[in-house]
Amino acid sequence: MTKRILIIGIGAGDPDYMTVQAINALNQVDVFFVMDKGVAKEKLVALRKAIIERFVNGHDYRVVEATSPERRRDEGESDYRSAVDELNRDKQRVFERLISDELADGECGAFLVWGDPSLYDSTIRIVEAIEKTGNHAFDYAVIPGISSVQALAARHKVPLNQIGRSIQITNGRGIANGFPNNVDSVVVMLDSQDTYRKLADQNLDIYWGAYVGTPDEILISGKLHEVVDDIVRIRAEARHKHGWIMDTYLLRRSDGET
Amino acid sequence: MTKRILIIGIGAGDPDYMTVQAINALNQVDVFFVMDKGVAKEKLVALRKAIIERFVNGHDYRVVEATSPERRRDEGESDYRSAVDELNRDKQRVFERLISDELADGECGAFLVWGDPSLYDSTIRIVEAIEKTGNHAFDYAVIPGISSVQALAARHKVPLNQIGRSIQITNGRGIANGFPNNVDSVVVMLDSQDTYRKLADQNLDIYWGAYVGTPDEILISGKLHEVVDDIVRIRAEARHKHGWIMDTYLLRRSDGET
Repeated sequence: MTKRILIIGIGAGDPDYMTVQAINALNQVDVFFVMDKGVAKEKLVALRKAIIERFVNGHDYRVVEATSPERRRDEGESDYRSAVDELNRDKQRVFERLISDELADGECGAFLVWGDPSLYDSTIRIVEAIEKTGNHAFDYAVIPGISSVQALAARHKVPLNQIGRSIQITNGRGIANGFPNNVDSVVVMLDSQDTYRKLADQNLDIYWGAYVGTPDEILISGKLHEVVDDIVRIRAEARHKHGWIMDTYLLRRSDGET
Repeated sequence: MTKRILIIGIGAGDPDYMTVQAINALNQVDVFFVMDKGVAKEKLVALRKAIIERFVNGHDYRVVEATSPERRRDEGESDYRSAVDELNRDKQRVFERLISDELADGECGAFLVWGDPSLYDSTIRIVEAIEKTGNHAFDYAVIPGISSVQALAARHKVPLNQIGRSIQITNGRGIANGFPNNVDSVVVMLDSQDTYRKLADQNLDIYWGAYVGTPDEILISGKLHEVVDDIVRIRAEARHKHGWIMDTYLLRRSDGET
C-alpha cells in the first residue's frame, strides 16, 4: 500500500507530443498535482488540464492545484545559486505537503512536467530529496517527454549536431562570455535576456523558435548577424502580445558543414 | 501531387515511446523505407516492423527494404570525417533511388529513425541534400522522438543537468582527451571503445545504460572508479550474448551538487 509518484514528461507545446507511455501513465493516476510559476502559469495550467481531459479515459481522478514558490530575481551567479536552492527548499515543502496530505496510501500521484523531466526541471531533484529524508514512504518513476530542444530541431528540420561533433545545451548564462570553445552547436534554453545578441559579430547560424509546436509558433533562422534584429523585435512583440514567452534556439558555427 | 517524405522519430527502445504525432504520421504513410546497418540491423528492422504493425490502423502500405551502405572503419579524426562523408554520399544515392523509383507522385514515404532524428542521425542531412539538388520534387517534415539520452535519464531517474549548469552531448571521441572543461555533465553516445575508462581517475559519477527501455535493459550507476570494471565486463558480456549493443551514459562531476 505504498504511495506512488509519477513524474511525467508531457512534451513541449503540441499535445500530440505525448507518448503512449505517458498516456498509459496518466491513466494510472489518482491525483494530479498541478503547479506552475510566473506569467506562463495560466497557459501552462490550461495545457496540462487539456492533456488530462483528452487522454484520461473513463477513470476517476482528482486535480490538486498548488501555488508554486517563485525564485527571487537577482543578478550574479552566486545569488542565482542561492536563490535556486532556496526556491527548491520551498518547493520541497510544498511537494511534501501534497504527498503527505493529498495522497492516500496505495494511491498514485503525478507531476506533469512541460517538455522532458531530465532537462532544466527541478521535479526529479525535489522528489529524490524528499525520498532521501525518509519521512515519506513512496516509490517513484520518471516518464520522458519530447523536449523543446527536439521540437525546435524538428520544426526547423535541422540536426542538432554537426557530423561527429558535440552539442552543448545551456542557458543564457552559458553563452554570456562567448561561444563555448569545444563545440560547434549550442542550444540555449531559458534565456530571458536575448543573450544571442552578444555573439552577433561571430560567424554563426541561428535557428530560433518561440511557442514551438503550438498554434502561436514563430520560427526564424539565418545568419545570426542578419536576423538578430528581427528576432529581438519579434520576440519582444510576441512577449507583449501573449504576456509570456517560451523560446529556445540553436546556434551553430557557420564555418562547419551543415 | 508532390511527393512527401516524413522523417519519423520512433523513440529509443520501448515502442511505448512513440508519440501521438508519430502514430498519426505513420498512418499517412504509403511506403516505409526500412534500412539499418551493421550487427544491430536485424533487431532494429524487426523493431520498426513491429511498430508499423502495431500502430498503423486499417490503412494499406508497402515496406521497401534497402541495404544501407556501411562506413569504412578507420582510426583518426580526418579519416573519420572523410569516411562519414563518403558514407553519406552513398546513402544519398540509395535514398534518391528510393524516392525516385519506389514512391509515386502524391504518395507519402517515411524513414523511421531510432530515437530522435535531430541527434546523431544522418537522415535529415541526407534528405535536405537531396532536396537541394533540385532533381526531385518533394516536401518533407520531421517528427521528434524520445532519444536514448532521455530514456537513460528517465530510467536512472536523474536530471541531465546540474542546477543552472550546461550539458554536453558527445561521442567517445569527445571525451578521449579528457572531461570537457566548461560543463559538469556529459552524455556520451556511440562509444564503442569504453572511453569512460580513461576518466576513471577523476571524481565522476556515471549513469550507464544498455538496451534502455527494452526487456534486455541493463542499468549501472555509481562512482565511476568503483563501477568502471563492472561496466566494462557486463558490457562485453552483453555484447557477446546479444551480438550487438546500444549503450549510452551520463558522466557527472561528483563535486557538484546532485
